Amino acid sequence: MTSSAVSMPEAPAMAAPDFADIQAAAKRLAGQAVVTPLLESAALNARAGGRILIKPETLQRTGSFKFRGAYNRLAQIPDAQRAAGVVTFSSGNHAQGVAAAAALLGIPATIVMPADAPAIKIGNTRGYGAQVELYERDSESREARAEAIATETGATIVSPYDDPGIIAGQGTCGLEIVHQAESLDVRLDALLVCCGGGGLTSGCAIALAETSPRTKVYAVEPEGFDDTRRSLDAGQRLANPSGTKSFCDALLAPTPGELTFSINRRLVAGGFAVSDAEVAAAMRYAFTTLKLVVEPGGAVSLAALLSGKIDARDKSLALTLSGGNVDPETHARALAADAA
Amino acid sequence: MTSSAVSMPEAPAMAAPDFADIQAAAKRLAGQAVVTPLLESAALNARAGGRILIKPETLQRTGSFKFRGAYNRLAQIPDAQRAAGVVTFSSGNHAQGVAAAAALLGIPATIVMPADAPAIKIGNTRGYGAQVELYERDSESREARAEAIATETGATIVSPYDDPGIIAGQGTCGLEIVHQAESLDVRLDALLVCCGGGGLTSGCAIALAETSPRTKVYAVEPEGFDDTRRSLDAGQRLANPSGTKSFCDALLAPTPGELTFSINRRLVAGGFAVSDAEVAAAMRYAFTTLKLVVEPGGAVSLAALLSGKIDARDKSLALTLSGGNVDPETHARALAADAA
Repeated sequence: MTSSAVSMPEAPAMAAPDFADIQAAAKRLAGQAVVTPLLESAALNARAGGRILIKPETLQRTGSFKFRGAYNRLAQIPDAQRAAGVVTFSSGNHAQGVAAAAALLGIPATIVMPADAPAIKIGNTRGYGAQVELYERDSESREARAEAIATETGATIVSPYDDPGIIAGQGTCGLEIVHQAESLDVRLDALLVCCGGGGLTSGCAIALAETSPRTKVYAVEPEGFDDTRRSLDAGQRLANPSGTKSFCDALLAPTPGELTFSINRRLVAGGFAVSDAEVAAAMRYAFTTLKLVVEPGGAVSLAALLSGKIDARDKSLALTLSGGNVDPETHARALAADAA
Repeated sequence: MTSSAVSMPEAPAMAAPDFADIQAAAKRLAGQAVVTPLLESAALNARAGGRILIKPETLQRTGSFKFRGAYNRLAQIPDAQRAAGVVTFSSGNHAQGVAAAAALLGIPATIVMPADAPAIKIGNTRGYGAQVELYERDSESREARAEAIATETGATIVSPYDDPGIIAGQGTCGLEIVHQAESLDVRLDALLVCCGGGGLTSGCAIALAETSPRTKVYAVEPEGFDDTRRSLDAGQRLANPSGTKSFCDALLAPTPGELTFSINRRLVAGGFAVSDAEVAAAMRYAFTTLKLVVEPGGAVSLAALLSGKIDARDKSLALTLSGGNVDPETHARALAADAA
């Protein structure tokens, strides 16, 4: 597989959020986002040989962590700009997060989604009251569609990850993990984060750099879409090779975000890549042992642990299960494939 | 359908546990059982028109609330009797609870299970190190098999529900619900409990009578196995008609327990019965919206709410999701059946 470097300005156009921005986001989200629990399974601890704390963002409003960033970002749109609405592009979880946040804040939302997105994601996004515009993943530019809508309507474009408000919102997940681990008297050696464009990873990395600086943060991605892992190794943003496939529909970003990578290169220890088969096995483990519904992209961190990519023996490790928006049929097929 | 009254002595042979027993159980369980979170879903609140708090005992050690009672009961077996072991009979969740508790306490365990129990339950019970003896549900008496083993080995028989130590352990679930609801500033109007033999229901009823006396406690059962509901209405223990079927394998007790019913008749407000189709719909809702894996018997309370058996408009209501030990294939079939 080949990969090409992405041209990058010396410094990103936007300023990275800092820890105070995450604290401010936590205040905005209070009473709106779910403070998801930090779970522990005796069975998983025994299997891993360490102490594993699970952050199930599957239980977050809209079924993924994306609501955190979306609400934090939209809540900061000035009143005068709200009537013109927001527009975004997303394979589904950011779509639902923006749609739900927009509904709560009374802002019209238009979401550009790939026509092959899971039905549950398209249906839920419409269910929150957003207008959905479908595009063909292979032949159209979702950014161009979103920009055309913004030009026409004056709507604010909300990036899925490359935005300080989004990153600060996702960082509240990391903040909760540290506080909840402390209340269990656990000092985390590592945090595994499911990584697409890098919003959750960078937000958590900022939160942990301040509150738990000895914890190493790792990005976990699907094989073939491990652009963040390879970019961290190379010290520059690399794109994924074209033509690769993964059923982790939430994590198919072509390249690390400009802003997210500027943070992650400073604060993230490294990355891991997992195969679809390893992800299916993790989804099955989540179902049979943890009793949690996890979508493919939300299971990559657990897959990295279960497949032995990271050794947790005698360590304390937290991991995100970042989303649970999966069609029942896709879920059943993944579990059956793993059993086969 | 006909039903027959069950002969009952004036008072049960055992004394009912009281609130102090539940507090003592909570101390025994600290660090062994999971303090499962009390979850809330904006989507479910909107659908129900009230405030719904979900107690997912699916996330409990062994995947159901049964570990609470089992550990509390086994921890009270005197040292001198432990080497002779314990024996019990169970369709699967009590089996796993006893097996896991016995392993933690170093007590040998033999479990009499129906040959048609879900594979996941038989496999997990063996996985905890217990010896499993299969019996034919329709032609053999599981109690007689357990008694024969006890006579031969000197093992202590541990009833699935009709035991003060078991009931007090299950009551810790109710205690947690009240404390967790209080921390959310919620005053509960009602608690819906998934009910088989009545152990969880009676334990929660004792806990709530002391800590939240204005909360009405309801037992929820599968249609055809609503012996507790009918017995509460009749004021005496009634058996279920023979020949009825339900896929709620955890809730097929033939009649209310003697001890559990003596408590429930005093403290429980009434009962609801739900059809297998309503349970399948609740399992699908749990999957798609709550992102939780719930077994049929663990979903009856949610089914009672979603099917409109209880009106939660402008009310605050808690419900147990009492277990999540379901084979992936059974789960997929239930979700597909509901979608059809």
